[in-house]
Amino acid sequence: MTSSVGPGPGRRRGRRPGGTDTRGQLLDAARVEFAEWGYEKATVRKIAERAGVDAAMVNHWFGGKEALFTASLDIPVDPTEILATILPGDPEHLGERVVEMFLTVWDATGGGPLAAMVHSIASHEEAARMMREFIVNVLVGRIVEAVAPDQHDLRAGLCGSQVFGMGMVRYVLKLEPMASADHATLVAAVAPTIQRYLTAPLTT
Amino acid sequence: MTSSVGPGPGRRRGRRPGGTDTRGQLLDAARVEFAEWGYEKATVRKIAERAGVDAAMVNHWFGGKEALFTASLDIPVDPTEILATILPGDPEHLGERVVEMFLTVWDATGGGPLAAMVHSIASHEEAARMMREFIVNVLVGRIVEAVAPDQHDLRAGLCGSQVFGMGMVRYVLKLEPMASADHATLVAAVAPTIQRYLTAPLTT
Repeated sequence: MTSSVGPGPGRRRGRRPGGTDTRGQLLDAARVEFAEWGYEKATVRKIAERAGVDAAMVNHWFGGKEALFTASLDIPVDPTEILATILPGDPEHLGERVVEMFLTVWDATGGGPLAAMVHSIASHEEAARMMREFIVNVLVGRIVEAVAPDQHDLRAGLCGSQVFGMGMVRYVLKLEPMASADHATLVAAVAPTIQRYLTAPLTT
Repeated sequence: MTSSVGPGPGRRRGRRPGGTDTRGQLLDAARVEFAEWGYEKATVRKIAERAGVDAAMVNHWFGGKEALFTASLDIPVDPTEILATILPGDPEHLGERVVEMFLTVWDATGGGPLAAMVHSIASHEEAARMMREFIVNVLVGRIVEAVAPDQHDLRAGLCGSQVFGMGMVRYVLKLEPMASADHATLVAAVAPTIQRYLTAPLTT
């Protein structure tokens, strides 16, 4: 799965100090440091030190701490690219863009990485913690911050719960008709839920 | 977890032919037969045969095929009891009763059985299939059938996705504030989603 993370910005600069070994060493070191210290407290300096390379290599290969964290989670998407795709546009239709985006990303991989991630989360407290921090700090939290009027963390959790549940039912449980439904059907059904979690009042 | 499944109707009849060994043998045989044939095609006769006991023992210990299936899944609840609790009352508030019920059941076990179930589903195709059939044939399907105007299977999948996702975020990912939120907060946030999946039009 790491292969689909794609080259970091540095790879396009031509010079490739350290080669692919450096990248792999940084990923291994990042997994250890993020698991031990969490996203906030882990530092690029300590990760580079553990990998035995210069801290500048993190920017060179990954573009920064957040992208290194994402890559270390084996998540085959680029959150920055995804956010740039879905955030522009009418905030009242953001729910539709969120559901469509997750379906597109997951359909492309057939759900295998999702099942692997679920397996890992259910087995290892560190995996659960890292996924929690990915949701809060990187992906869903930023979507919420862009549009939500209040209760950002609750809204992020609720969005995560519905998106994640949809993925489980469609790709892991493979429950019909959700397993084979076209995107339009699922967007029509699920997007209003996401939209409500993003922008509507949450108390009744 | 099986201990909290509780005694089948037969256990209250006084006579206990076969003893607890019979119950365990039936559970073992049921897991094999349900995994091999699925819920619809597995038969009480074949399960009893595999366990080396009389088919009447299934009714005696479990009350029937459905309860034997539930017990074989290590689900620490009695679906019949749950349905009898939540189905009566205003159908327009069923979503609230569903969310409250799942929170109550899961809070009582601290989420351990949920994590174990998720782990099993993500690892074994048979576990995913059995959980799929439990959702369709036993628990969520019956809630949907009681109130939904159409698209029963899609609605059951959608309800399952949100309830399951809520459980994952609260008990397995332990993402705050959902992990520590009181029931009223979560019911207010999630029940309208379940209510919509149960009774509202699903196309926009």
